[in-house]
Amino acid sequence: MRVINFNAGPAGLPLPALEQARDELLDFHGTGMSIMEHSHRGKDYEGVHDEAIALLTELLGIPSTHEVLFLTGGASQQFAQVPMNFLSPGASADYLMTGVWSEKALDEAKFFGTPRVAATTVQADKRYQRVPKQSELQLDPRAAYVHLTSNNTIFGSQWHTFPDVGSVPLVADMSSDFLWRPTDVSRFAFIYAGAQKNLGPSGVTLIIAAKDFLAKGRKDIPKYFRYTTHSENHSLYNTPPTLAIYLVRNVLAWAKELGGLPALEQRNREKADLLYGAIDRNAGFYRAPVERESRSVMNVVFHLPTEELDAAFVAQAKQAQMVGLKGHRTAGGIRVSMYNAVSPQDVKTLTSFMDHFVKMHG
Amino acid sequence: MRVINFNAGPAGLPLPALEQARDELLDFHGTGMSIMEHSHRGKDYEGVHDEAIALLTELLGIPSTHEVLFLTGGASQQFAQVPMNFLSPGASADYLMTGVWSEKALDEAKFFGTPRVAATTVQADKRYQRVPKQSELQLDPRAAYVHLTSNNTIFGSQWHTFPDVGSVPLVADMSSDFLWRPTDVSRFAFIYAGAQKNLGPSGVTLIIAAKDFLAKGRKDIPKYFRYTTHSENHSLYNTPPTLAIYLVRNVLAWAKELGGLPALEQRNREKADLLYGAIDRNAGFYRAPVERESRSVMNVVFHLPTEELDAAFVAQAKQAQMVGLKGHRTAGGIRVSMYNAVSPQDVKTLTSFMDHFVKMHG
Repeated sequence: MRVINFNAGPAGLPLPALEQARDELLDFHGTGMSIMEHSHRGKDYEGVHDEAIALLTELLGIPSTHEVLFLTGGASQQFAQVPMNFLSPGASADYLMTGVWSEKALDEAKFFGTPRVAATTVQADKRYQRVPKQSELQLDPRAAYVHLTSNNTIFGSQWHTFPDVGSVPLVADMSSDFLWRPTDVSRFAFIYAGAQKNLGPSGVTLIIAAKDFLAKGRKDIPKYFRYTTHSENHSLYNTPPTLAIYLVRNVLAWAKELGGLPALEQRNREKADLLYGAIDRNAGFYRAPVERESRSVMNVVFHLPTEELDAAFVAQAKQAQMVGLKGHRTAGGIRVSMYNAVSPQDVKTLTSFMDHFVKMHG
Repeated sequence: MRVINFNAGPAGLPLPALEQARDELLDFHGTGMSIMEHSHRGKDYEGVHDEAIALLTELLGIPSTHEVLFLTGGASQQFAQVPMNFLSPGASADYLMTGVWSEKALDEAKFFGTPRVAATTVQADKRYQRVPKQSELQLDPRAAYVHLTSNNTIFGSQWHTFPDVGSVPLVADMSSDFLWRPTDVSRFAFIYAGAQKNLGPSGVTLIIAAKDFLAKGRKDIPKYFRYTTHSENHSLYNTPPTLAIYLVRNVLAWAKELGGLPALEQRNREKADLLYGAIDRNAGFYRAPVERESRSVMNVVFHLPTEELDAAFVAQAKQAQMVGLKGHRTAGGIRVSMYNAVSPQDVKTLTSFMDHFVKMHG
């Protein structure tokens, strides 16, 4: 029996995508071998690779000015690889600080140039409970780029409207909310996302980048770390993580079948309404620290009256086949991650449990 | 029906490792979710992670002076990451040139210091048909390290005895022959290998490194690229490629069940004897360019009298359910990759076909 999986990532994946992988695991399309046993230079794997890119292009409406790359190393490698390519000694880039992942990205950029904090919502307790308003941004028009984290997995906040950064290239770490709704890709010079939330297993990193931005990358860095190397080789410069890309393909096919990004947005908003509704109607018991306008649709953080009740909540939910609810050690409390594969019915099961828990312990 | 897979990598994997993955794909050990849906910080995945390291440590007899890391990006990323960590501006490192992959490793090192070619067997036609003899090495005792490629996938040569490099740390790219036989790990400061030959699917890179060598790595590089970061965090600094590591675990368990590295060495030598035997007894038809003492046990390269016959050989073998035999574009001809998962019976099927092919076309 499958449990209800609220893990923060790696996260639950759509059952049809997994069933397809299981059914084809020993023999992909009658070829007598698994997709992971195929050469990355053969037509069978290349068909999967190209289909993953085509599905993503179709779902997001990626314009011809932009392209898709598959890399590895997760967002953590991109924290360093982005400034390695686009930030030169003495040059600056603007970082918008909204959580732990923004901090890590900023720290890596310091090895290459002079990143600036152009906005931060950090509190005295080192936590973040909202994203900045446009009026709070102190942007430098000469910055090499502006970097933001679109969704903050740990604290549970999210940019619902992306800031206006003028003509400076906008770079976004979308690891934890990529593909949750239709997105105007043309506003971004560079989007990156580890796959292990909405897209597939860990082990592959998605990039969507403006071709003219990639062309501005430094040439005096190792070939492997230049984005242009992977762009020129269609993400086949070296052996890509073929099995992970195949699973991403399966997940994208499921997303298309479901109705694409408009349907996913509706589904995700329905789940968020259900969950924040349960918190707000029991506001004396459940406390959500994130400001209302910054509440994340993907990761919902809240606290019960005591840490003992937090722990009891997690334990009893697990007995009811709901897992992954313990908050990140930095934020504490409860965290409910509701990525694309989580259904509204899954969330209803949780909110019923939440209402019942209040009656028992409130 | 499964075919006989002689792919150069990604390569065929042991059937029991794949069957286990298939059977557990929707529900790992009764947890109600796939291993790829588990948190990398949870005890279920950590059990897999630790077991993969323990199996590798047991199989290779890795001493306590060394440790295992799981990274990503394949050997190609290591070509740059090794000198980023261990080569400083103005310092030199010795590279032993035996093929295309050595060349790529050397080229990336030039971005960080002054690598030297301490030996090369390159020919006027840019091919390599042997590895250097000890007497040909012009080693610099002040080098930061000596780098070699233990097996040359493209040209089909292999170091059967590793060179004596004195007290200079020895770094080896073992991507295409890692784990083919017992190996004295203590002779190496740093071993790296993409998994997609003997170990598992593409998407995870294995490192075995001396702890005192890692400690000498540069501190003025991004945190993500420091090996010490991953060492200090037990390869869990960021989300590792959990599914790929799980599959490596399955392959290692199969290797142990088979009898470990002594049994694998016997199996691999039997296959090599079978295949080189078929070439040598038909030496007027099949021509193996690599010098006898440097012949690879993993990748066997040979040519038929004409390119048309090369093509006919590949096509007819495919009809007989044997795939992956076309040589790399750089070397031409036929390449038979006989990684650990290929059985002696598979090779006997091929050598029978080879003898028959000579009768028909010789």
